[in-house]
Amino acid sequence: MTILEKTIAAIRPVDDAAASIADQRLNSLTKPPGSLGQLEEIVRRYAAIRRDGSAPKGRSALAVFVADHGIAEEGVSAFPKAVTLEMLRNIAAGGAAIIVLARRFAYELRVVDMGVEADTSSAPFAGVTYRRIGPGTRNFLEGNAMTREETRRAIEVGIEVAREFASSGVMLIGIGEMGIANSTSAAAVLSAVTGIPPARLAGRGTGIDDAGWKHKIDVIERALALHRAALSDGLEILAAVGGFEIAAMTGVCLGGAAADVPVVVDGFIATAAATAANKISPKLTEHLLFGHRSTENGHREALEWLGVRPILDLEMRLGEGTGAALAMSTIEAALDLFHQMATFQSAGVSGKIR
Amino acid sequence: MTILEKTIAAIRPVDDAAASIADQRLNSLTKPPGSLGQLEEIVRRYAAIRRDGSAPKGRSALAVFVADHGIAEEGVSAFPKAVTLEMLRNIAAGGAAIIVLARRFAYELRVVDMGVEADTSSAPFAGVTYRRIGPGTRNFLEGNAMTREETRRAIEVGIEVAREFASSGVMLIGIGEMGIANSTSAAAVLSAVTGIPPARLAGRGTGIDDAGWKHKIDVIERALALHRAALSDGLEILAAVGGFEIAAMTGVCLGGAAADVPVVVDGFIATAAATAANKISPKLTEHLLFGHRSTENGHREALEWLGVRPILDLEMRLGEGTGAALAMSTIEAALDLFHQMATFQSAGVSGKIR
Repeated sequence: MTILEKTIAAIRPVDDAAASIADQRLNSLTKPPGSLGQLEEIVRRYAAIRRDGSAPKGRSALAVFVADHGIAEEGVSAFPKAVTLEMLRNIAAGGAAIIVLARRFAYELRVVDMGVEADTSSAPFAGVTYRRIGPGTRNFLEGNAMTREETRRAIEVGIEVAREFASSGVMLIGIGEMGIANSTSAAAVLSAVTGIPPARLAGRGTGIDDAGWKHKIDVIERALALHRAALSDGLEILAAVGGFEIAAMTGVCLGGAAADVPVVVDGFIATAAATAANKISPKLTEHLLFGHRSTENGHREALEWLGVRPILDLEMRLGEGTGAALAMSTIEAALDLFHQMATFQSAGVSGKIR
Repeated sequence: MTILEKTIAAIRPVDDAAASIADQRLNSLTKPPGSLGQLEEIVRRYAAIRRDGSAPKGRSALAVFVADHGIAEEGVSAFPKAVTLEMLRNIAAGGAAIIVLARRFAYELRVVDMGVEADTSSAPFAGVTYRRIGPGTRNFLEGNAMTREETRRAIEVGIEVAREFASSGVMLIGIGEMGIANSTSAAAVLSAVTGIPPARLAGRGTGIDDAGWKHKIDVIERALALHRAALSDGLEILAAVGGFEIAAMTGVCLGGAAADVPVVVDGFIATAAATAANKISPKLTEHLLFGHRSTENGHREALEWLGVRPILDLEMRLGEGTGAALAMSTIEAALDLFHQMATFQSAGVSGKIR
C-alpha cells in the first residue's frame, strides 16, 4: 500500500460521544447555556475530531505550500508569474502577511516549496522546506497539470507534514498557499468535484478586471471540457486541473484526519483542496474546521455546497493561510474558555429560576 | 462645567485625513489591494479615531462594569438577582469567561462595582474597583431608575476610567458588563433612543422562555409609556430606564472619544450604552468599533440602526465584554499586519500587470 492508501484506510468517523461529553462540561460553565455560540460548537467539533471529550489543547501550526501553475501562461492572473518566487522570498524574509500572523500568535510555521518555477533549493531561502515536485505544473489547457504519480507524491508531502506535526504534539493545523494563477486551478477543481458551473466559482483572484474574469471563466470551461472523461475521482481531478500546493493541502486534510488532528481550512484555494480530500475520503469535512469566508466569488458557494459554517467573515481574500491563522486564535480562545472557566458548582453561582 | 460637559466639549470629529494616510500604506503592502478586507477598514478607522495616519499601537484594556437592577423585581430574567454578586465574585476569583480571555490576550482589566445590591466594599473582592452609585437601580416601573445626578456620576465613572487608561498608554478600550435584568434596561434605552418598538429589541437575555419574553416586552412597553415625557435626551433616557453599568459604559464611549482612543463595544447591552452616548454627542459612533453581532434579538436591529458593521459574528450572547475581547485581538492583528508587513518596494515584489 502507498502512504496515501494507508492514510485513507486509517481515517475513522469523528467521535460524536466525545462531543457529547464536551457539551456536558460546556453546560456546567458559569454562563447562560449556549451563550458562547459558535465557540461552543468549535469545542464540540474539536472534541469529536480529537476523539476526546476533554478536548486537550496542544500546539498550533501552519503549513503554507507554494507552487507555480502552467495555466498562468493563459493570462488568468492580475500579477505576473514571477510573483510566486518573489512572495516565497518575502515569506522567508518575514515580510508576508502570514509571517506577521504566525509570529503574533506563536504558531509553528512550515513553508514548503512544492514547485516554484525557479529552483532556489541550491541556495535555499531561510526557513523554507524544499519538497519540489517540478518547476510548476503544466498548462492544463494542453494536457494534465500533473501526472497521477506527481499528484500522489504532492498529496503525500501534505500527509507527511500532518504526521510530523501530529507526532510532535501539534493539535491544530492550519493550511494556506501561495501560487500565481492558483485561483483558476482551484475553481476548476471545485467545479469538477461539485458540478457548479465555473462562472459561479471563478472570482477576481488577486484582482483581475471584467475582461480578465470572463477570460478566466472561458479558460476553466475549456479545460473542464478537455478533461471531462478523466474527472471521475479526486486524484484524477487534481492531476487534470489541480496544482502541487493544492494537492499538498489535500494531503494535510487527509493526514490530519488520519491522525485525529483538526485541520483549519483557509480560503477559496484551501477549500478546493478540502473538497478534493472529501471526494477522496467521503465525510472528510467532518474532520475539518473552516477558518473564514473569503470574498472570492465562489467561496460562499463552495462552503454552502459542503454544508459548513466558517468561523470568521472578515471579507479577506489574501490566502497564505491568513484567514486560518486568525480563526485558529479563535479556536484556541474557545478551548481556553472550555478549560479555564469555573462551573456553576465550583463558583457557587445560582442556576436558572425560569 | 462638570466633567461630563467638559468631556462632551472635547470631542472632535474623527480625522479622515489620517485614514487616507493609513490607506496609502495599506495599498503599498505585499498583498493584492484590499485583500485584507475588514482588517484594512479597521486600520483606517483606528487611524481616523487616533488622528494619526501611522496608527500607532498601544496597550489594550477592558473595563467591565457590574450593577444590579430594580427592574429584576418584575421577573424579567431567567436567573435570580443574586447572580450579579455571585458573578462579581466569580470574576474576582478568575473563573468568569472575561477573565479567561483577558488573561489569554494579556489585556489590562478593570472590573468596577457600580452598584451591586450587596455592598462588599468593606471586605473587597480582589481586583475589583468600588465606584458604587447605590445598591442597584430602582424599579423603573415605579419611577426613575436613577436620579439625574446619579446618572451623571455613573457616566463620569466611565469617563474617568477612559481617561486613566488613555493617560497610561492604553490605545484600545473594550467595554463589557454584568448585571441581572440589564438586557431589559438595555432594550428600554435602545427603544427610547431609536424609536424601534420593544418587541423588536427585547430578547431572551440569559435564556427566558416564551412567556417570560412576552412579559419582558410588556414591562418595557409600560415603562416607556410611564416615562415618555422625560425621554428627550440621552441622559434623561439613562436616568429613566438605564442602569449604573450602562451609564458607565456610555461614559467610556464619551471619554474614549474625547481622548482619541477607540472604544470597542461588546454586545447588546454595551450597544445600548453606545447608542445613548451617540444621543448625547452626535456622530459619536464614528469613534467606536463594534466587536461582534450578538444573537440577542435586538442587536442586529440596533447595529443596523446605527449603520455599523460588527467585526465578529460568532453567535455569542454572554456579555462581560467577551465579544469585545475577541474583536480586540483581531484589531491588534490588523495593526500588526499594517506595521510589520513588507511593501512591494521593500520586498522587491512585482506589481499588477492587468
